[in-house]
Amino acid sequence: MTTYVPPTRNQSPYLPFGDQRNAQFYGKDILSVNQFNRDDLEYIFGVAKEMREMVTRIGTFDLLKGKILANLFYEPSTRTSSSFTSAMERLGGSVIPINEVRYSSVSKGESLPDTVRTLECYADVIVIRHPESGSAALAAKYARKPIINAGDGVGEHPTQALLDLFTIVSELGNVDGLTVTMLGDLKYGRTVHSLARLLSQFIVKINYVSPEILRMPSEIIAELKEKGVSQSEYNTLDAVLPKTDVLYVTRVQKERFENQEEYESVKGAYVITPEVMEQAKDKMIVMHPLPRVGEISMEMDDDPRAAYFRQMEYGLYVRMALLAMVLGKA
Amino acid sequence: MTTYVPPTRNQSPYLPFGDQRNAQFYGKDILSVNQFNRDDLEYIFGVAKEMREMVTRIGTFDLLKGKILANLFYEPSTRTSSSFTSAMERLGGSVIPINEVRYSSVSKGESLPDTVRTLECYADVIVIRHPESGSAALAAKYARKPIINAGDGVGEHPTQALLDLFTIVSELGNVDGLTVTMLGDLKYGRTVHSLARLLSQFIVKINYVSPEILRMPSEIIAELKEKGVSQSEYNTLDAVLPKTDVLYVTRVQKERFENQEEYESVKGAYVITPEVMEQAKDKMIVMHPLPRVGEISMEMDDDPRAAYFRQMEYGLYVRMALLAMVLGKA
Amino acid sequence: MTTYVPPTRNQSPYLPFGDQRNAQFYGKDILSVNQFNRDDLEYIFGVAKEMREMVTRIGTFDLLKGKILANLFYEPSTRTSSSFTSAMERLGGSVIPINEVRYSSVSKGESLPDTVRTLECYADVIVIRHPESGSAALAAKYARKPIINAGDGVGEHPTQALLDLFTIVSELGNVDGLTVTMLGDLKYGRTVHSLARLLSQFIVKINYVSPEILRMPSEIIAELKEKGVSQSEYNTLDAVLPKTDVLYVTRVQKERFENQEEYESVKGAYVITPEVMEQAKDKMIVMHPLPRVGEISMEMDDDPRAAYFRQMEYGLYVRMALLAMVLGKA
Repeated sequence: MTTYVPPTRNQSPYLPFGDQRNAQFYGKDILSVNQFNRDDLEYIFGVAKEMREMVTRIGTFDLLKGKILANLFYEPSTRTSSSFTSAMERLGGSVIPINEVRYSSVSKGESLPDTVRTLECYADVIVIRHPESGSAALAAKYARKPIINAGDGVGEHPTQALLDLFTIVSELGNVDGLTVTMLGDLKYGRTVHSLARLLSQFIVKINYVSPEILRMPSEIIAELKEKGVSQSEYNTLDAVLPKTDVLYVTRVQKERFENQEEYESVKGAYVITPEVMEQAKDKMIVMHPLPRVGEISMEMDDDPRAAYFRQMEYGLYVRMALLAMVLGKA
Repeated sequence: MTTYVPPTRNQSPYLPFGDQRNAQFYGKDILSVNQFNRDDLEYIFGVAKEMREMVTRIGTFDLLKGKILANLFYEPSTRTSSSFTSAMERLGGSVIPINEVRYSSVSKGESLPDTVRTLECYADVIVIRHPESGSAALAAKYARKPIINAGDGVGEHPTQALLDLFTIVSELGNVDGLTVTMLGDLKYGRTVHSLARLLSQFIVKINYVSPEILRMPSEIIAELKEKGVSQSEYNTLDAVLPKTDVLYVTRVQKERFENQEEYESVKGAYVITPEVMEQAKDKMIVMHPLPRVGEISMEMDDDPRAAYFRQMEYGLYVRMALLAMVLGKA
Repeated sequence: MTTYVPPTRNQSPYLPFGDQRNAQFYGKDILSVNQFNRDDLEYIFGVAKEMREMVTRIGTFDLLKGKILANLFYEPSTRTSSSFTSAMERLGGSVIPINEVRYSSVSKGESLPDTVRTLECYADVIVIRHPESGSAALAAKYARKPIINAGDGVGEHPTQALLDLFTIVSELGNVDGLTVTMLGDLKYGRTVHSLARLLSQFIVKINYVSPEILRMPSEIIAELKEKGVSQSEYNTLDAVLPKTDVLYVTRVQKERFENQEEYESVKGAYVITPEVMEQAKDKMIVMHPLPRVGEISMEMDDDPRAAYFRQMEYGLYVRMALLAMVLGKA
């Protein structure tokens, strides 16, 4: 391994310093998928791709050396928290991990605006995960430093949706023309709601496959219909799997069902196994936001179409891109 | 932004290497406000001011690169823990966060001296927050590495008192000649006790405004009287606010009152609002150790006299100064 | 203090780049003491010794700059977790601390293989502590990145055993020819089991001193007998202490006894005090994996033979060595 020489403004062969679009994200908050148009998405994915190349080549670099991220998690999420921590560290920055807020100032009754205005004295950017919808926007209203929403209850989880879309772009080369099938719990999963909204900016066909009681909310279907997205609903996967380019699997949680029998009967119908996948194309991908609890059998893991672990890795690059962008360094 | 070149011993235009007073803090513990005389305070604030200039200019620098802080919190305190973490990271050092001691070795019955002697194998300096008075001194007795007291129960919280005083110095230029009014719970708040003791080294007038049952302890009043500090006690703010240079507000906690009605009647009398502040000078500051829970209305936040968020930021600089000093690098 | 210049591949006067044995640990897992032969141990201790020299000379250096450790603790262990964190930071690397797994994905039912395959997207090496025996091996089976076992229930804790042995080597110069006496709970302590196995690769005499109900398991005695290790069992320390070179003390836990009286009677017989130590040699060491709860009196701490705090420090060097080795940088 050769000694790494950190890139400087003038030397970097990869990072688009001087790009005019850069300025528009500097100091901005990342709160909702709705804030991005197609140009923005292409820009973000361009930076994320560069991050991927840099990580592959040299692992870590000093683009954000000296910058500090406050990783403010009001509810635990190992995956998302670790992903942001790694993203900041791979960019040479530091992290203040804050995982105990429920025991601390907050339990003394401190308001979110006060917590955020305190943390921005210590950090350059704040990532926030909170159980209440709208809390990231509330934090952003009071903070001078950029806020990145890492999930606010039933609200948004924009970085998840961005990484999902970046996975599709990276694995299949483009989005236009694809058939995306969403499977499982489409009612409560904020992940599929946000992804559907992002996809509506592209020319796609979306299939929704779910039990009757877990269908995609009608307002989202209406929203996408207005934008001209072709959508269809199904109870089983059989009919659509052969034509699917992206199969997005979600967890069907026992708690959503009134009686146990209904759950058991439905559960089996949405498990992805090598047998089920015999009907699928050779060139397609299976995604899952993880954690999975049986919806995809472990025998699938060696199938090259299984993209769910690579999806985690794409998440790293997208979060690196977002951190660099809001700190004016992308 | 220009590439940052870390300062070296001979180049730094800011940091007073070679200052003789430097040596007296190297390797020392920070346990109590009583350990500092007026010269020490001026030296600390001089370094803190330099830290502020460095952070403003370049954000982070490598003064403590390679040094490790063990951040040992026996009780959670997001604010103080994050402040020390940021202070160490802005100086280029690393942090071992230890927030789970209650679940761990300690719950297996390990003594504080053993825990500290273990951690000093891994770290260069230890910050300790502990619910029991005297525990920081106990830790320091056994440790070879510097111990910084980040609050030990009803005992001391010296870095809070230092940052409070640094806030006053930074905002108002000096301490001598000021009228400081302390408001709220003066009986149980270790913050106001420590600050009063520190102020006794300067020529100040102190007003204590509190409900009858939450008055400043008589032994502290006696201690300050002996040092010649002019002190007065009041039940309401009206009489003293117009002459106040520093209004230090604390929380009045419901739990301190025997009956709810008494609390409710008293509570309202100590809330700082824009209306209340009409009686205050133009050039004065309102401070609060935070978290606040209603003692200062949010409408106050845009008032330039509201110094409580800037106070958090001054805390960062003071803690940077202390870390650098005890590690021999200030 | 002079400015530190990080060593590069060709300049380092200390680190044996180019050593052929290096390659055999690159990318490997550290799961069990059984994976090391005597040559391996000597190599590891050689690297650990170099780490010690580097830390003593310059504190921290950039051998693993840009590398990221995921510190995955399913059960809390301040000591082990802090030790690995410090080891990584002293090598210039970064850490993702994961202490809340019990609240998080895992409580949503995620399997260990999935958690590990997620984390390896973010990190370069994973340290895992888990309550279930065999879990480190399970993690290693699925991970592409190196796994280091930091204790898996009643299973193994190989880095503890390695640091114990490195302590003996460092303090006494060699292992062959020594008399090692293990004292206390020899039945449940995985520490003494692993150490005994490691010692069996050397020419040593081992004494086991324990209450009847806490004797060394017969299968371990049989295993060592087959390798030709001279072993003896005792109920009291008196007979063997004068000839002991290494006294390895463990905790005798109250919970192991059926009646309280038996515990009380036995407990006192295994407490190391200055009086007890009058019978011991001048050149010998007392070790303990810590935390201790009364098995060694605090009056012993100033005795130069008390090696248990130095033992913690040796642990840092061994863990630095292991991290550097599996990442191909030793």
